[in-house]
Amino acid sequence: MVVKHWKEVGEMKPSEPGAGGVKLRVLIGEEEGAPNFIMRYFTVEPGGQTPYHTHPWEHEVFVLSGKGEVRQGGGRWSIGPGSVVYVAPGEEHQFLNVGDEPLEFLCMIPISK
Amino acid sequence: MVVKHWKEVGEMKPSEPGAGGVKLRVLIGEEEGAPNFIMRYFTVEPGGQTPYHTHPWEHEVFVLSGKGEVRQGGGRWSIGPGSVVYVAPGEEHQFLNVGDEPLEFLCMIPISK
Repeated sequence: MVVKHWKEVGEMKPSEPGAGGVKLRVLIGEEEGAPNFIMRYFTVEPGGQTPYHTHPWEHEVFVLSGKGEVRQGGGRWSIGPGSVVYVAPGEEHQFLNVGDEPLEFLCMIPISK
Repeated sequence: MVVKHWKEVGEMKPSEPGAGGVKLRVLIGEEEGAPNFIMRYFTVEPGGQTPYHTHPWEHEVFVLSGKGEVRQGGGRWSIGPGSVVYVAPGEEHQFLNVGDEPLEFLCMIPISK
């Protein structure tokens, strides 16, 4: 059993080009012994965005705070606290902060990806 | 891509003995095409609790609101908004609401469990 608060976990900057104003924390990962999937906490500053990209693994996202959009091709969906987003393997996607406060969300992915 | 709000998802009662005042919603599951793990939203009413049990799969939990405890053997840890709990496969565990408001948390598990 591991019990902690998300704020205790150190943050890092993703190195992928196209990310702007993004920080992430790995809340539960291989270090904690997770065998199948990992839990990550993202913070996107106002005006920031994750890369518009695709990869062969899924995202399961739960939005905690802020005002954002998720983009896919020409489509954009508004997201806010309590929004749930499933991005299937191979789907292009991007998360954007369109508000004045940090956009914060959990993003789970399968392990070793 | 699936985008929705957790409140749009219908809730159900777990049938397992030992659960009291517990409702859950499957936010992202096999119905949405999730291949590896599923996202569930739990609501535990004041005074309620999940069963004290164990199983061969892990839990990855993020607490959204309320005041609770997670129990394992004689140990109890306080949990509240922003708490992160990793329960390894085979570990006994129970979540209890010890506050006056609903205890709400996300609980992810690997698929087909």
